[in-house]
Amino acid sequence: MQMKELSAIVDKKLDEYLKISYPEDIFKSMKYTVLLPGKRLRPVICLESARMFGADIEDALPTACAIEMLHAQTLIHDDLPCMDNDDFRRGKPSNHKVFSEAIAVLAGDALLTFAPQIIMKNSKHLGAEKLVRIMGEYFQAAGAYGVIAGQVVDIENERRQSEGEDISIEKRAEILHYQHLHKTGDLFKLALRSGAIIGGADEKAIDALTVFAEKFGIAFQIADDILDESATFDEIGKTPGKDKISGKLTYTSLYGMEKSRKDLTLLLDECEKILQDNGFKSDIFSEILQKIRK
Amino acid sequence: MQMKELSAIVDKKLDEYLKISYPEDIFKSMKYTVLLPGKRLRPVICLESARMFGADIEDALPTACAIEMLHAQTLIHDDLPCMDNDDFRRGKPSNHKVFSEAIAVLAGDALLTFAPQIIMKNSKHLGAEKLVRIMGEYFQAAGAYGVIAGQVVDIENERRQSEGEDISIEKRAEILHYQHLHKTGDLFKLALRSGAIIGGADEKAIDALTVFAEKFGIAFQIADDILDESATFDEIGKTPGKDKISGKLTYTSLYGMEKSRKDLTLLLDECEKILQDNGFKSDIFSEILQKIRK
Repeated sequence: MQMKELSAIVDKKLDEYLKISYPEDIFKSMKYTVLLPGKRLRPVICLESARMFGADIEDALPTACAIEMLHAQTLIHDDLPCMDNDDFRRGKPSNHKVFSEAIAVLAGDALLTFAPQIIMKNSKHLGAEKLVRIMGEYFQAAGAYGVIAGQVVDIENERRQSEGEDISIEKRAEILHYQHLHKTGDLFKLALRSGAIIGGADEKAIDALTVFAEKFGIAFQIADDILDESATFDEIGKTPGKDKISGKLTYTSLYGMEKSRKDLTLLLDECEKILQDNGFKSDIFSEILQKIRK
Repeated sequence: MQMKELSAIVDKKLDEYLKISYPEDIFKSMKYTVLLPGKRLRPVICLESARMFGADIEDALPTACAIEMLHAQTLIHDDLPCMDNDDFRRGKPSNHKVFSEAIAVLAGDALLTFAPQIIMKNSKHLGAEKLVRIMGEYFQAAGAYGVIAGQVVDIENERRQSEGEDISIEKRAEILHYQHLHKTGDLFKLALRSGAIIGGADEKAIDALTVFAEKFGIAFQIADDILDESATFDEIGKTPGKDKISGKLTYTSLYGMEKSRKDLTLLLDECEKILQDNGFKSDIFSEILQKIRK
């Protein structure tokens, strides 16, 4: 199957999971951001990771959808006025612009527990042991040691910059690496590891995918930073150049365009090598790496 | 054991679980609200529910602490400027006043997944089946069908009131009942049911405790509304009379003081009857019901 087909399957299932119940506003708000048009990269990666180790799509679909819900949760809260204050997301008004700040906070909260609930309710056939392990992966990625740690370091860095604190280049590089590892990488790590667990991969394979996820997460973020500097609103669905204007710490602002492009290529090469060295055969992963390379 | 001893055990364990790691701000913020002085009513109820069915304190302590963390999460987000906009909580400045709005949002997010992670990491000896069931209870209470549903209905009602919409008494009574059932009751339901599951209670007992939780939750909220109208800042640790001034829908504003006191007594009588009818013997529960009766 190709990426497009997989992402269509994910979209259909997300729509099914997110039924509008009472009180309607909260479910509408959750559904709004989860179903904004997107490539469904994280769920597709989860499905493909599971497939590589012999699982059916159906086995991994609840977990894949949960990861997209968690991703949407981070977008809703990141866009809030007290965070990045973004009015647009994927070309549409951001959640709090449509539903109010209060509902946006609560929709994010709701997704954080709705997502693992979806896994639990729909993955019983995986057995309690695997379920508990997937839950562990989910909590690790979603929590204070995962995406939230990345976001906190981002916010703290911006506060220190706005207070005029002089931060050395080494320190800024360290902060940026930490941000990318957690804010971006941890969701890919969750997708790859939970997929592999569902497929019954051995620990060596799971470890290799963990390293892949870290490198891929950084590559993905570098590509995003490059795009933010060079793309139009229509291409990225949000205000371009905003990071640069706001003085946000990005890979391109820290290292310049040339080194950014070079490092991106290096990281993607390393990702491909991990796939080869471990005998992971995946047209989907090749397709994804190709797309980011451009 | 008495309530005071149990809540001291909970406090000690909460302090232990909430170690300050990197990035420090997020853990400090989580810890700040979780450890604000309080009676630890929900965790104590969970411990006592487990004990009634033969479990040790140690068996239920991770779940009990997780419930207090979830409770703190709801307080942090409810106090945000875009929600109830409360500057004080338990006599201290609310979380966003100390740590900024952005950190308060993230601390709440982090607690939502940190809490079930604490259960999973520290309750392995309960076995995967019980763990999965407790997780299910947690997600149900924490999510869009639980406390969040109650909060959404609260917010929507306030919006409609502020827009001058005429809402009939019957409708307001219905809204208030729904709020109390979910915003307040669902955490007690979680405490009682998860405790009973840990203790190995049968389904009949769990059902009885569910009814108890619903009645107790409403009684607790009526008592809180009565206190809000009659107490001082020192007694309740937040601005008294705020609900009345802001025109918030409360039991006392809807039914008046006399009926509120009468209904409170009736509900507490019903709670005691459930304990008796089912042979649930608990000095702690008697103590709690006594305290609320006053």
